[in-house]
Amino acid sequence: MSTDISTLGEFGLINHLTEGVKQHNQSTILGVGDDAAVIRPDVKKEMLVTTDLLMEGVHFDLVYTPLKHLGYKAAVVNFSDIYAMNAEPKQITVSLAISKRFSVEDIEELYGGIRLACEQYGVDIVGGDTASSFTGLAISITCIGEASKEDIVYRSTAKPTDIVCVSGDLGGAYMGLQLLEREKAALSGEDKDIQPDFAGKEYLLERQLKPEARKDIIERLREAGIKPTSMIDISDGLSSELIHICKNSGVGCRVYEDKIPIDYQTAVTAEEFNLSLTTVALNGGEDYELLFTIPITDHEKVEQMEGVREIGYITKQELGMALVSRDGAELALKAQGWVNL
Amino acid sequence: MSTDISTLGEFGLINHLTEGVKQHNQSTILGVGDDAAVIRPDVKKEMLVTTDLLMEGVHFDLVYTPLKHLGYKAAVVNFSDIYAMNAEPKQITVSLAISKRFSVEDIEELYGGIRLACEQYGVDIVGGDTASSFTGLAISITCIGEASKEDIVYRSTAKPTDIVCVSGDLGGAYMGLQLLEREKAALSGEDKDIQPDFAGKEYLLERQLKPEARKDIIERLREAGIKPTSMIDISDGLSSELIHICKNSGVGCRVYEDKIPIDYQTAVTAEEFNLSLTTVALNGGEDYELLFTIPITDHEKVEQMEGVREIGYITKQELGMALVSRDGAELALKAQGWVNL
Repeated sequence: MSTDISTLGEFGLINHLTEGVKQHNQSTILGVGDDAAVIRPDVKKEMLVTTDLLMEGVHFDLVYTPLKHLGYKAAVVNFSDIYAMNAEPKQITVSLAISKRFSVEDIEELYGGIRLACEQYGVDIVGGDTASSFTGLAISITCIGEASKEDIVYRSTAKPTDIVCVSGDLGGAYMGLQLLEREKAALSGEDKDIQPDFAGKEYLLERQLKPEARKDIIERLREAGIKPTSMIDISDGLSSELIHICKNSGVGCRVYEDKIPIDYQTAVTAEEFNLSLTTVALNGGEDYELLFTIPITDHEKVEQMEGVREIGYITKQELGMALVSRDGAELALKAQGWVNL
Repeated sequence: MSTDISTLGEFGLINHLTEGVKQHNQSTILGVGDDAAVIRPDVKKEMLVTTDLLMEGVHFDLVYTPLKHLGYKAAVVNFSDIYAMNAEPKQITVSLAISKRFSVEDIEELYGGIRLACEQYGVDIVGGDTASSFTGLAISITCIGEASKEDIVYRSTAKPTDIVCVSGDLGGAYMGLQLLEREKAALSGEDKDIQPDFAGKEYLLERQLKPEARKDIIERLREAGIKPTSMIDISDGLSSELIHICKNSGVGCRVYEDKIPIDYQTAVTAEEFNLSLTTVALNGGEDYELLFTIPITDHEKVEQMEGVREIGYITKQELGMALVSRDGAELALKAQGWVNL
């Protein structure tokens, strides 16, 4: 079925998309339906705000991205920014600009992904805007979170001797993207010799198409009584994020190549594509894992923690930011995380 | 001068644009520069959130819209939504998607307008995102405001016998748009007989290109001790907004054609364009005036208030929503405010 969006109009579309949305949070007083949403913050908490604008053709390719996955990912990447402050996402607003080639059913798919992500993470959709676009799809999501003042973790507070930790594994989302791009080329006949073959690569596709935010890691750290000294989420690659922490904190770092967590599928696929595995893990981006530092006194607690790896330590600023390679050489870290613009 | 944006990169561009930004509000703890902004809400207040996504070619035409004005307007329309809740705008996030045809200087102009609006209204820029776009410019702004719980005014709480009021005058922004569109056609040679002539029409151009949010009206009402029973800002036309208030409140209304405030320039120009003045005032949109209802007991106070006009009253729902024409006929109100999509 393909229903023209003009049959609903702006208000009809928003009402249609948010129909039956359940609110999860006490702080949500009023959602969609007035000039603004109303939130009653916990009097003991501070609020966090982050925003992302995703443009078709730049941030996503609808040739291989299902709309429902796109919606899910668009929401989750915002939650990830809030978790990276050691806070909890509570509300989002969703603005969509839609061109005529999309039907009501398409937008339901997209919004279905956003709603699913909100269900999974206990976040309320409280507002939004829909507009037409003469060209591609644009998705703008703003996320509001909350945390006690003393819990918030900034990226500017790492200290020498702190241990550098990373959750999950890195480079998978980037290799998933390479696989999808290769299939797209094959389908379009640019490279007829390549047969799309995703068998055994499901993990990489999921990393790219349906990433999760590491709510579980935040909870695990809290349960273990660990407050990171600094934290950031890895959206642009480990290298780029490490540089942010170091520059903002006025410190240096040493991270060890052989300690960077990499999944087996990522390694096999990087080899298949003739890519340097370390470069993929350092600069791949879109992993949405957490990069954080902890006091050296928490080393034993973190060592036993599932899904977290210690990859190096923070130094004085004068010592610079370096990767220690397998053979012991020190290589300067460079940000190559962000190629658009 | 025309500097390529690639010389700055994402982080360089945001830092460049927000350089020297001063924060006005105590509640702003951290602005641009981490995964999320941090806000410390007043413990006695609730927070309001509104968002808008503006797409080039749909919401604005850069042929006749200076980038600085565009930035100013993009911010102000969000402030207007917060004032329409009888609240104060405090923070915004700004996301921009920019195609290659824009230089750093262009984006400085745009951002300069946003910063100017923030200065004027005492609002802090606390975050944002910049991305590339393969096509036009996209601007997404989210605004956060605050108000005491008992001060917030919704659109769903108008009651029969309440008086319907409107601030300023209506239809001017729409006539400004007609003038600009006519000049654009003249310049492109589609209609060589028309000579652009804006003399005496400055007010209309300003209504379209550099609207203001009615902070002053909110303050005046507060000083007079009047709390509206319902309120909305007029972005899509008086008709459409009246229907929102009536439907959300479960009431009807009577508004009088001869009481709708219209500027002399709007009237003269509507005649010049052979447009019905009442249609222009009812459906024009983009005036960003406030439409609100007050208890009948506040009639005398409002009657003397500068910049506010009483245009009708709220009825029981069964009586429907009607415009009473100059000759006393009742015409059903229809929303034609929103033509996109």
